[in-house]
Amino acid sequence: MLDQKIIEQLEALAGKENVLTSKADMVAYSYDATADMPNQTPDVVVLPTSSEMVQQIVNLARENKISIYPRGAGTNLSGGTIPLKKGIVLSFQKMNQILEIDAANLTARVQPGVVINALNSAVAEHGLIYPPDPGTVATATMGGSAAENSGGLRGLKYGVTKNYIMGMEVVLANGDKVRFGGKTVKNVTAYDFSNLFVGSEGTLGIITELTAKLIPAPKYRRTMMGIFKTIADAGNAVAGIIAAQVIPATLEIMDQMTIKTVEDFAKIGLPTDAKALLLIEVDGNSEDVVVNEAEAVMKVVTENNGDLQAANTDQERDQLWTARRNALPALASLNNTVVLEDATVPRSHITDMLVACEEIGKKYDLTLGTFGHAGDGNLHPTILCDKYDEDEISRVHKAVDEIFKAALNYGGTLSGEHGIGIAKMKYLEDELGKSGTNLMRNIKLSLDPENVLNPGKMVPMQEV
Amino acid sequence: MLDQKIIEQLEALAGKENVLTSKADMVAYSYDATADMPNQTPDVVVLPTSSEMVQQIVNLARENKISIYPRGAGTNLSGGTIPLKKGIVLSFQKMNQILEIDAANLTARVQPGVVINALNSAVAEHGLIYPPDPGTVATATMGGSAAENSGGLRGLKYGVTKNYIMGMEVVLANGDKVRFGGKTVKNVTAYDFSNLFVGSEGTLGIITELTAKLIPAPKYRRTMMGIFKTIADAGNAVAGIIAAQVIPATLEIMDQMTIKTVEDFAKIGLPTDAKALLLIEVDGNSEDVVVNEAEAVMKVVTENNGDLQAANTDQERDQLWTARRNALPALASLNNTVVLEDATVPRSHITDMLVACEEIGKKYDLTLGTFGHAGDGNLHPTILCDKYDEDEISRVHKAVDEIFKAALNYGGTLSGEHGIGIAKMKYLEDELGKSGTNLMRNIKLSLDPENVLNPGKMVPMQEV
Repeated sequence: MLDQKIIEQLEALAGKENVLTSKADMVAYSYDATADMPNQTPDVVVLPTSSEMVQQIVNLARENKISIYPRGAGTNLSGGTIPLKKGIVLSFQKMNQILEIDAANLTARVQPGVVINALNSAVAEHGLIYPPDPGTVATATMGGSAAENSGGLRGLKYGVTKNYIMGMEVVLANGDKVRFGGKTVKNVTAYDFSNLFVGSEGTLGIITELTAKLIPAPKYRRTMMGIFKTIADAGNAVAGIIAAQVIPATLEIMDQMTIKTVEDFAKIGLPTDAKALLLIEVDGNSEDVVVNEAEAVMKVVTENNGDLQAANTDQERDQLWTARRNALPALASLNNTVVLEDATVPRSHITDMLVACEEIGKKYDLTLGTFGHAGDGNLHPTILCDKYDEDEISRVHKAVDEIFKAALNYGGTLSGEHGIGIAKMKYLEDELGKSGTNLMRNIKLSLDPENVLNPGKMVPMQEV
Repeated sequence: MLDQKIIEQLEALAGKENVLTSKADMVAYSYDATADMPNQTPDVVVLPTSSEMVQQIVNLARENKISIYPRGAGTNLSGGTIPLKKGIVLSFQKMNQILEIDAANLTARVQPGVVINALNSAVAEHGLIYPPDPGTVATATMGGSAAENSGGLRGLKYGVTKNYIMGMEVVLANGDKVRFGGKTVKNVTAYDFSNLFVGSEGTLGIITELTAKLIPAPKYRRTMMGIFKTIADAGNAVAGIIAAQVIPATLEIMDQMTIKTVEDFAKIGLPTDAKALLLIEVDGNSEDVVVNEAEAVMKVVTENNGDLQAANTDQERDQLWTARRNALPALASLNNTVVLEDATVPRSHITDMLVACEEIGKKYDLTLGTFGHAGDGNLHPTILCDKYDEDEISRVHKAVDEIFKAALNYGGTLSGEHGIGIAKMKYLEDELGKSGTNLMRNIKLSLDPENVLNPGKMVPMQEV
């Protein structure tokens, strides 16, 4: 428990209305969207309203050796916002202003609490979009998605969050406020701090402002579904589309387990005997190019023994997307716990990895469905299980171990977009080696020597 | 002078043929492509042939407190490779193998000494390109350009070096070898080390292998020149092209001083009464789109009172490019010293910055021409001077101070693509503040506590 004096100091510097201490509030901030994680209530939740206030809170916390957990909307998927060692949750819901939209320079300056969709609504009237689109765009914040380097469905063509953060203001563990980057497309002044803090999961500093890159919204799109009798056909179609030098905005895959579950859940007429579906969308600013790309994609699907379903209207597009949008909720409805992984492999190993996931699911007698972003090799093997069934959970853990082993064997990575957080710390050395985890710890300690910022996440603090 | 024992140890671990000590060799490694810098010969030059050899050299150097300067082709433009504190230059000319071209995953794995153009030649047969194109592609190396985060003429559409480095092997100052990143498009495992080492100018680690991203080579292009009577018209045309949602592959500007000098030098019929030229190239994989974009560009040029010259053949394209290619050599021919800056502003301030450069040149009675990458706000104000004329050099220094002040006033940055090196250290705090320079030093010290790697560059080592 925090000393009442600390709470009073927090109230004095942040205002009583911005300091939460009720039991109900503490429970609400004790978890995030990750399954199979420890829950832990914080001592207090503070809702800062300025970067100066964040500096004061950080100074107070550091001087009193209290842990701080920066938090956006808590939609993250590796346990990154859980207040493991109690202390202060800093929730950015009140720093939610869009400070500037600069259409001439294609940039926006925002506070960290701005919801991704809110930014997209605001820039739409300039004909612009902010492309990163994690599944949670309707609730996830710019600060949280920057800290996690969120990916999403458009990663193949448009890249991920780090490709769209041009500058930042960050409060460091020593209380300093640093601004870097900005509106220039090129900038080699200093180390690339923006990319260091993006994806650092709140362990290196607290983001208090962001300069984001915008792009013109694509004017045309075509959406289609490929239906395949084998996983290999679907995997070959993915490779074939890239080989045809078409880069779709979206190139999503679903395995049979996912197809069946979505169909049971949403009754939208999916072919439940199919072994795999691809959902493909091409877009751009020239109708001719988009049409040509769609035709090239359809040719590849057919050549790889796929049946085609193309959307001719917005309504038909929505129907095709319903399948993909329902993948996670449908799977989640099957049991009380959804273990959602994001093992990622080079694109050429998509088929191998899908087959490996299916085999691992069978081996451990688990309900395992895989869907994900086939175009960038970012798969979501998803295990449905009962967290009260100890035997099953132990099989889940073994299966997850094997999934990551397989991903690394195929030249892949532990996490394509969900981050390390608590969930994947134990695998980190398998990918980075001792020298790599030591390098992480060195950098962490140079910025946060007392381990005040989001302790217990991402960085193994024991020397190996 | 280094102890002869150290030279013998280097010969023992690297082979006599890979250790240079002659006076002539030391002079050859005492400078880079930057004007107005101190020259300093190293004690010894070592040409490593493996990352293990690099580890051994680093360990020997650290234990004996000898400085190490990693070096590619030495084409850098901020003094970054000058062996300021003597010691060992590590030249990567013998680690020049392309290890793998993986067309399915659009990646190449290379040693740091591979010349950029050599990689492009090798991937051309797969229909691919490595887009970053600093002016020195024919000699600059992949390792050097990664360490400097080189930009170039295609930055606006295709981005800079950091956008194309997906993974690395790096030898750290403690002798550890670390591998991170790889062939996956998405990767959020660990901090973003690739982007930390890219642009770190050899101060954090020594790059011994790179995984680079490739893209399909664009099939079509159109090239044209806009000739303007005022700088404002040219600046407005740049803004107008972006506002028309065309992103040219190249959008280069030249002021009157540069136009006149190039014409005197190359006699290619440039309009010497023009106040500014824009060289514009659009490219892509659809001829229709490229033609449409070219038409949109030409419309914008005309609307902004520009005269047009379009290339209808490859030969005519080469003629247009001759002007841009000759900008630097032409200016350089005017006097014995070329001070080439790269102050960078948000695109919307291009006109302001061009005017400011012109006025600063007049104020200090200097021969100052400006050319550069208008599309991304990255300008090269270039001062031709006589390094033996003390009075002139002192005016040059004052002019450069004012150029950077102007760039920062317009929301710009000290360096768009040349780096900080020795040349811009004194301005760093103006952009980053004390807290930012302290952050740089903290990171530097956490990775290289004894300041062995490229000392005296980029990072102010005195606490401020």
